[in-house]
Amino acid sequence: MVLVEPEGPINVGMVARTLKNMGFRELMLVNPKCPPLHPYALVMAPGAKDLLSEAKVLGDLREAIRDSALVVGTTRRRRKGKELIPLRAASQQILQLARGGQKVSILFGREDTGLTNRELSLCHLLVTIPTDPTHGSLNLSQAVAVVLYELRTSAQGEEMPRAKGLAPWGELEGLFEHLQEVLLKIGFLDPNNPRAGLEDLKGILMRARLDSREVRLLRGVLRRITWAIERVSKGEELW
Amino acid sequence: MVLVEPEGPINVGMVARTLKNMGFRELMLVNPKCPPLHPYALVMAPGAKDLLSEAKVLGDLREAIRDSALVVGTTRRRRKGKELIPLRAASQQILQLARGGQKVSILFGREDTGLTNRELSLCHLLVTIPTDPTHGSLNLSQAVAVVLYELRTSAQGEEMPRAKGLAPWGELEGLFEHLQEVLLKIGFLDPNNPRAGLEDLKGILMRARLDSREVRLLRGVLRRITWAIERVSKGEELW
Repeated sequence: MVLVEPEGPINVGMVARTLKNMGFRELMLVNPKCPPLHPYALVMAPGAKDLLSEAKVLGDLREAIRDSALVVGTTRRRRKGKELIPLRAASQQILQLARGGQKVSILFGREDTGLTNRELSLCHLLVTIPTDPTHGSLNLSQAVAVVLYELRTSAQGEEMPRAKGLAPWGELEGLFEHLQEVLLKIGFLDPNNPRAGLEDLKGILMRARLDSREVRLLRGVLRRITWAIERVSKGEELW
Repeated sequence: MVLVEPEGPINVGMVARTLKNMGFRELMLVNPKCPPLHPYALVMAPGAKDLLSEAKVLGDLREAIRDSALVVGTTRRRRKGKELIPLRAASQQILQLARGGQKVSILFGREDTGLTNRELSLCHLLVTIPTDPTHGSLNLSQAVAVVLYELRTSAQGEEMPRAKGLAPWGELEGLFEHLQEVLLKIGFLDPNNPRAGLEDLKGILMRARLDSREVRLLRGVLRRITWAIERVSKGEELW
């Protein structure tokens, strides 16, 4: 469970308590506006002090998700190129991976503005809690409670097939950097605004849920493109 | 939704907000230790002041449930002679009655001690939210959030995401032929057995469920690779 820039110690404490209630342990805080052991947080987290003490505080969201095979963003906003899946349907996908022993990160944004578009672009999956369209914005700790309840309850349901092992986020990041480099080289991306076209391609690859072998395969294609261009530029034939 | 002797205005406010979020309206308070329009309650209930104003304050639980066809108690304690039903299973029974136009009351007890045995004895149904056996006690407003989420989600059946318009097979086929041509050109595929590597790449792209715009985007990348190689082979710079 990753809280991105939470402001209120009361919320952080309530989230810790909820994790404990639902049998989860790992809490990460990215740039929190209050220390995890703030007195108000402790008051709201009876019995969950250990969880607050062990909470990891990080300066960059990318560090938090580096080892994750699946990054799930919670949001009410639809984003181009990505499906927004209701929590109950998404929990099946999340549990399949978790059952396979893979790490899943679930991101919750700021109390007032949620996750930024840039943060949402790091997610494989965007999940929403169905609420009233006119008054839909849940309190942070209640959103966490609902998500954990759903995961816990769905996990106790029927046995599901195990998902295949997905590539950790760090490998995907390496692939995306490599892709950007090659696309800049061949002039597909605008060097002044490389993100414009790249985001769509990243969206496609994240939807495909790549495993490590497939990441290597795609990087093999990228290396071969670079190789072909260099060879031709020396006046050599490709064959 | 009936809160029995709630102590904290913050909790009452958060419960009101949650009701609004989940599209419910009716809140009853039995012997509350704070008035529903307490300033702290109002702070915690942005946009739900109307609901707090209209909340019914009663002195006796029996008055609150007089018109109810089904009285549901939320508790972690098992009680002799009554089943303790997990929320998900119970929500079906609750919704059947509500759909028949009958009134259902759901009782939540005090923050610290919950509902008394006497209060539980007034209930048709005892419902529990599955939590960790050693740290099971949820915050009041979070318990309400979880119950309302479950009722709302079960009521709507699975709100499945609408499938976006996918590219017709003919377009995918065109993309795959184009991909094969470029991969042969750069020597990534073995001309004697092009299918070997191509099938994996096709598998990735099919899993991504491409739409027509994305097919065109990918073909744009392929054209650009060919363009770059031709340009370089004429001794021209890429930039």
